[in-house]
Amino acid sequence: MNKSAILHIPQSQYAFANDEKTMTIRLRSEVSDLSSCTLYYGDRACSKSPVEFYPLPMGVVARDELFDYYEVTFGTPYNRVCYYFKLVKGEEWIYYYANQFSAELPDFVLDGTVIEGRSEYFQYPVILRSEILDVPDWFKNAVVYNIFPDSFASGKGRIDNSGKQITLEGGAVSKSKFGGTIPGITANLDYIRNLGFNCIYLNPVFTAGESHKYDLLDYYHIDPCLGSDEDFKDLVEKVHDRDMTIVIDGVFNHCSWHFFAFDDVVKNGEQSKYKDWFYNLKFPVIRPAGTKDVPTYACFAYEKKMPKLNTANPEVQKYFEDVCRYWIREYKIDGWRLDVANEIDRNFWRNFRRAAKEENPQIVLIGEVWENSESWLRGDAFDSTMNYNFQRNCREFFAMDKLDAFQFSGAISMMLFRYPTNITLGQLNLLDSHDVPRFLSLCRGDIRKWKLAFLFLMLCPGVPSMFYGDEKRISGIKEAEYRRPMPWQNEENEMADFVKSIVSIRKIHTNPQACFEIVHAEKESRMFAFVRRGVKGTVLVCMNAGEKEEYVEIRNVRQVLMEAGSVRDKDNYKILPYGLGIYLLQ
Amino acid sequence: MNKSAILHIPQSQYAFANDEKTMTIRLRSEVSDLSSCTLYYGDRACSKSPVEFYPLPMGVVARDELFDYYEVTFGTPYNRVCYYFKLVKGEEWIYYYANQFSAELPDFVLDGTVIEGRSEYFQYPVILRSEILDVPDWFKNAVVYNIFPDSFASGKGRIDNSGKQITLEGGAVSKSKFGGTIPGITANLDYIRNLGFNCIYLNPVFTAGESHKYDLLDYYHIDPCLGSDEDFKDLVEKVHDRDMTIVIDGVFNHCSWHFFAFDDVVKNGEQSKYKDWFYNLKFPVIRPAGTKDVPTYACFAYEKKMPKLNTANPEVQKYFEDVCRYWIREYKIDGWRLDVANEIDRNFWRNFRRAAKEENPQIVLIGEVWENSESWLRGDAFDSTMNYNFQRNCREFFAMDKLDAFQFSGAISMMLFRYPTNITLGQLNLLDSHDVPRFLSLCRGDIRKWKLAFLFLMLCPGVPSMFYGDEKRISGIKEAEYRRPMPWQNEENEMADFVKSIVSIRKIHTNPQACFEIVHAEKESRMFAFVRRGVKGTVLVCMNAGEKEEYVEIRNVRQVLMEAGSVRDKDNYKILPYGLGIYLLQ
Repeated sequence: MNKSAILHIPQSQYAFANDEKTMTIRLRSEVSDLSSCTLYYGDRACSKSPVEFYPLPMGVVARDELFDYYEVTFGTPYNRVCYYFKLVKGEEWIYYYANQFSAELPDFVLDGTVIEGRSEYFQYPVILRSEILDVPDWFKNAVVYNIFPDSFASGKGRIDNSGKQITLEGGAVSKSKFGGTIPGITANLDYIRNLGFNCIYLNPVFTAGESHKYDLLDYYHIDPCLGSDEDFKDLVEKVHDRDMTIVIDGVFNHCSWHFFAFDDVVKNGEQSKYKDWFYNLKFPVIRPAGTKDVPTYACFAYEKKMPKLNTANPEVQKYFEDVCRYWIREYKIDGWRLDVANEIDRNFWRNFRRAAKEENPQIVLIGEVWENSESWLRGDAFDSTMNYNFQRNCREFFAMDKLDAFQFSGAISMMLFRYPTNITLGQLNLLDSHDVPRFLSLCRGDIRKWKLAFLFLMLCPGVPSMFYGDEKRISGIKEAEYRRPMPWQNEENEMADFVKSIVSIRKIHTNPQACFEIVHAEKESRMFAFVRRGVKGTVLVCMNAGEKEEYVEIRNVRQVLMEAGSVRDKDNYKILPYGLGIYLLQ
Repeated sequence: MNKSAILHIPQSQYAFANDEKTMTIRLRSEVSDLSSCTLYYGDRACSKSPVEFYPLPMGVVARDELFDYYEVTFGTPYNRVCYYFKLVKGEEWIYYYANQFSAELPDFVLDGTVIEGRSEYFQYPVILRSEILDVPDWFKNAVVYNIFPDSFASGKGRIDNSGKQITLEGGAVSKSKFGGTIPGITANLDYIRNLGFNCIYLNPVFTAGESHKYDLLDYYHIDPCLGSDEDFKDLVEKVHDRDMTIVIDGVFNHCSWHFFAFDDVVKNGEQSKYKDWFYNLKFPVIRPAGTKDVPTYACFAYEKKMPKLNTANPEVQKYFEDVCRYWIREYKIDGWRLDVANEIDRNFWRNFRRAAKEENPQIVLIGEVWENSESWLRGDAFDSTMNYNFQRNCREFFAMDKLDAFQFSGAISMMLFRYPTNITLGQLNLLDSHDVPRFLSLCRGDIRKWKLAFLFLMLCPGVPSMFYGDEKRISGIKEAEYRRPMPWQNEENEMADFVKSIVSIRKIHTNPQACFEIVHAEKESRMFAFVRRGVKGTVLVCMNAGEKEEYVEIRNVRQVLMEAGSVRDKDNYKILPYGLGIYLLQ
């Protein structure tokens, strides 16, 4: 037995409550090492001594190159649980508890008295409601269309492609590049809905300087280049009229160097009542003109025009708590996507979350955290994070041929097991965004590859998000390219039709909780197949991400949902290069 | 290379800031597997592309049966750090980042553009002050004497050994068993100080029913059997006069079934304004008389006389926030030990911690968490937890001969690497308490074994806590025995003298930050030796926990601090069975 590969972490993605009566316990072992793994669980407060334990066999639910992932989900009569594992490899067996391997359980007898070891097992101290991690149900069902406002639309099916500069009260300037507006978004809601999307997520819309609107000047108004506050209110209403939802971008890590509080610090120096709103101020604080001047304050990255806010300051926390409440209460937004979330003080987020959920318990909070965000998904910060690991895995498999199907399967398994189940179902999966190259460009323009990746985006557990214009073949490797204006004039419908079909299959034939299982993913192959087993039946998805034909045996097909490059031959299906097939099984 | 054994967890005990300019990074590998491990770190916000990385060799700082623990602590010029590892085994090498092994770094070129992979390394997003975990300095220097008030003293050097029953206003009864009092503790402060202790931790002293005082009736007054509020104020003053500190026990998970709020629920049923102060109430709520009656409310364990408080309720949180502030502000206590801490809502503790630290930033908060308490030591709950893992390891090595020196060394290494360094230095290490058998009884009365364990308690990193009367040979396996009255009449001084000497060596010759290194711990041997390298020199401690003589080579002894069963023979020292030697090296 390779004991060094065994991993279990209490009170983590390896041991969590799904609700007040159900728990999931996981254990990782070396791939193909154990012949069985059994969970023994009991009542921490058991009135009998020693504690009575109940065995539950655990099954391998995922596998990668190195590891098997064992899991069991069970209804528990106790809300205070202690547990251990029995690991078996052929004739060899051992107990595993409290990170120790032992042939004995921890109770022992001394001078006729039983000395209880119940505290030495793994512990799930108590299932408290606040410890049950979950994501609002509506969000698990969301299919997100991500809009970069300046680049999307000036009106129905059009964008002016002309920038503006508006001088604001006080002298700061708001700029735009392509002329996209809030009314432009409103005018195209039916376009978005017809593609199948039911949620829009907007990059920043508040008053700011640059066209990207990440250098905030005023957190209480819509940027004048984008429209008016009334325009935004109208947008939200029309979104809700269509049973859709809207998520906006909150940029609280930093502001513009013309934000009122920073202005005050520049004007009043050490006398400013906002001097604790920023980090590392050296007085006098000036806005350095030269490109090589080092700013006398901390910045977002080293971007001197964006001073970093001191989010540990309770005054700053209160200011943004009010901002949070205002847009939820007055405009009825459905969620916040939170910029540079991992550089902001955790107490800031605790306060922000409490306020947001008080205003509306169904609000969703999505953190921009590119890396493993387990530490931000513990119930005191975000419901969800942007899943760039999804993008990376798809890039390496579908676009760049760096992984074979087995390696991709392993990477996806690891991704799905990074968090508790409920949290995984709320991850914002994406292929591209305003911060990375268009996925189509990573595919070097090969639409077949893009389609496979999009199919996986839509049918993988999690909440899919598509960046505006992917359906109109926007490409781009550099920022100026991938944020280019929506090519409304492109009337070719191949991508859009595909998007529509796949979103429809997602909505009709799967559900967020539908079990996900990889059924075909061999080494040195590029054929990847998985099923989703939901309340409405089992959907089998076969994708050939390679240049060679591949064969797969499929039985009991009730309905072919889509075939694009798959050919039936009795129970065998031939999947052509870059082809796919989606089947509803009996 | 055994990749399946490699473990690194970002933003955890494997990657943490010690202060605003210093970080520690750790990695675990299979024991003796790697020939080298190098950390490469860079600036997440590096203005150059790709990021510039700087190599730092990592060293093996601890080892157990399965693993090597690599570590490096370094001053960082950046407060936003990304990093990866290069792992080498002979000719074989690989990079490790973001939980993936790869022969390549994540940057790549597409159509002449570099696509940056900086977000795909491991990330330490930003060193914020609130993310730096630490423990008040005074507490790291504390040597704790733990007193069970009813059992300790009624006056100077005496205990009445007679119980009381006092009927309180409202009819509830406060009981005592042995007559220990607060003035009794005050009268013996010099006794405690003369042993070398500089901190007393008292089990509960507030008004309660049973003699253990864990069934709280009134959080604002000292229990009448133990004394008056004034007595307690006098105790705290006299403690502080002696440059000592005092920690008291906070029992907030549950209360007595005669606590005013529960009384109100019993009286007023669903109309009670306290009905949300408890869990799972079924009306009418009654206090069941029969031993087999199932209570209609949630309890501590299944103890019907102790209803569980709904600590998720903000009203309850506010009530105990006020209690917290009251005893800090009005009585100047130095810390709280927090009972059943892991069954209480995390938001309760966040609120409690904020209040406590506002009243006095130097307050110490010690949670009663028996298992791995990493999740409670992240800066939003406790500074410290009671380290029962220390007790377990010592029990198995010193008392019960279940581990050899190598296994003990591994268990201690694992214990010391469970948390970030600062947190480990604040762990409340103990051999016994009011909840476990006396360690002397686990040693079956063998004082030699007890002495070795006590020596280790005092010289191991962490804050040592001794339960009252260990120095007077209190034994006991059952609760009634190990909580027995202090045997003041026992005038034999062997244990007390030993305690005094060892505490003195701790205070004079080590310091909390002194590096700890195990220098001798072989398989099938019971000879365990370690050094502490502090600012005042290096202390070598040799302990033979077995029945056979063992030899150890020791050079450069400047001073013999203690020899009890060690015999010098040139550079070899013979350590007799259960003998010890403590040397100050040059």
